[in-house]
Amino acid sequence: VNLILLEPDEIRADRVTLRDARAAHVRTVLRADRGRAVRVGVIDGPLGSGVVATVDDDQVTLDCAFDAAPPPRSPVSLLLAVPRPKVLRRLWAQLAALGVDRVMLTNAWRVERPYFDTHFLAPEVYRALLIEGLQQARDSRLPVVTVHRQFKVLVEGELDVLASQTVRLLADPGPQPGVREALASHRANSPRVLIAVGPEGGWNDFERGLLRSHGFVPVSLGPRPLRTDTACVALLALVHDALRA
Amino acid sequence: VNLILLEPDEIRADRVTLRDARAAHVRTVLRADRGRAVRVGVIDGPLGSGVVATVDDDQVTLDCAFDAAPPPRSPVSLLLAVPRPKVLRRLWAQLAALGVDRVMLTNAWRVERPYFDTHFLAPEVYRALLIEGLQQARDSRLPVVTVHRQFKVLVEGELDVLASQTVRLLADPGPQPGVREALASHRANSPRVLIAVGPEGGWNDFERGLLRSHGFVPVSLGPRPLRTDTACVALLALVHDALRA
Repeated sequence: VNLILLEPDEIRADRVTLRDARAAHVRTVLRADRGRAVRVGVIDGPLGSGVVATVDDDQVTLDCAFDAAPPPRSPVSLLLAVPRPKVLRRLWAQLAALGVDRVMLTNAWRVERPYFDTHFLAPEVYRALLIEGLQQARDSRLPVVTVHRQFKVLVEGELDVLASQTVRLLADPGPQPGVREALASHRANSPRVLIAVGPEGGWNDFERGLLRSHGFVPVSLGPRPLRTDTACVALLALVHDALRA
Repeated sequence: VNLILLEPDEIRADRVTLRDARAAHVRTVLRADRGRAVRVGVIDGPLGSGVVATVDDDQVTLDCAFDAAPPPRSPVSLLLAVPRPKVLRRLWAQLAALGVDRVMLTNAWRVERPYFDTHFLAPEVYRALLIEGLQQARDSRLPVVTVHRQFKVLVEGELDVLASQTVRLLADPGPQPGVREALASHRANSPRVLIAVGPEGGWNDFERGLLRSHGFVPVSLGPRPLRTDTACVALLALVHDALRA
């Protein structure tokens, strides 16, 4: 944890009282005594510092000053076929840590029905995991998450609203160009990127065709088939790197 | 699982009998009946295909033909300060899936003593996790893993033997150049890369100085501090991508 994130309604006249894992973190990991300042931030709000006012066994109070804007929102969004629950669990904090503007989870032919029943698709569960990732990466902006049970409706309609004016990349095994080459030839005047990552068995032909006919350009991560979480981290790293250059 | 890996001593006259999770995979995931061919490989050996000869509730036999060389060894090695056990557990399969030649785990000032006691440093435990990653990525070459309790001895001596003639990169937050720029200016005539990844709190000044005086060039992954597993996946993706170009 490199930043302690606060809910807006926890803060009263710049003072916050922590009683949960964040209090324990201040006490036992940061070992912050009275008077020490720790990094704080407001979820979807500014960053700043909190001076420890009191430390007890069951609570810590901080006097906060918020004087810094959060990092800019990532220009990268993800369209992701719902992965296995175990993989989805691992993914949330990492996506937030790497920085992603929006995560659209979608159905696909090779997404197994029970994957939609996991509690890792419940907002209160994934929100906590996203916050964990933001606290790691010193960011306060929560990625926006939406779940789409109808792939066709998403791609043919909603996508133009949720992710307009983006370069669209389709991660696909095969002899495609890499991320950097694809962005160099297609970036044009859009600085925003949407990456589609399919289910473990891949998109089927209909899905791949629909994505391609809606502007998705295939990119390759090399010849090795990767697990969804590994592929997402690798893709976000490569796209952010290419956009920085 | 995109490949079933076999131990060399499991194979008798090109026939192998599986009774463990691999048998269950052939039966219930691949649903492979008698006569169907599945991808197989020998650990640290060739790849090929195995034709299902018998399928029972408790075992599957395959008649194998090994006719393909495994992918080339990765030109990338990792020098990694031992991370928290939970992070190390998550890392093994992903390192093998992305492809890494050698993993040197080392002590550092900010590595907590108990991290060395985890069973995720026991060869029989991490070997199984590495095999999981290889089976995902259709590779058969096990990364070579060594554990070094003395950082100074490793960097001043052993490193020249274990990782000679490599470009040495040091992942460090800050305004360093990125992986691609660093490789472009330092690659010279060595196609091999060694990446050092520090503990969560970073290397201390002595360690950073020792690495730099032994040829490690700092590279940055951007301004966001990342968890060790996320950072390793991102770095391996970026280095492999830069070497492919």
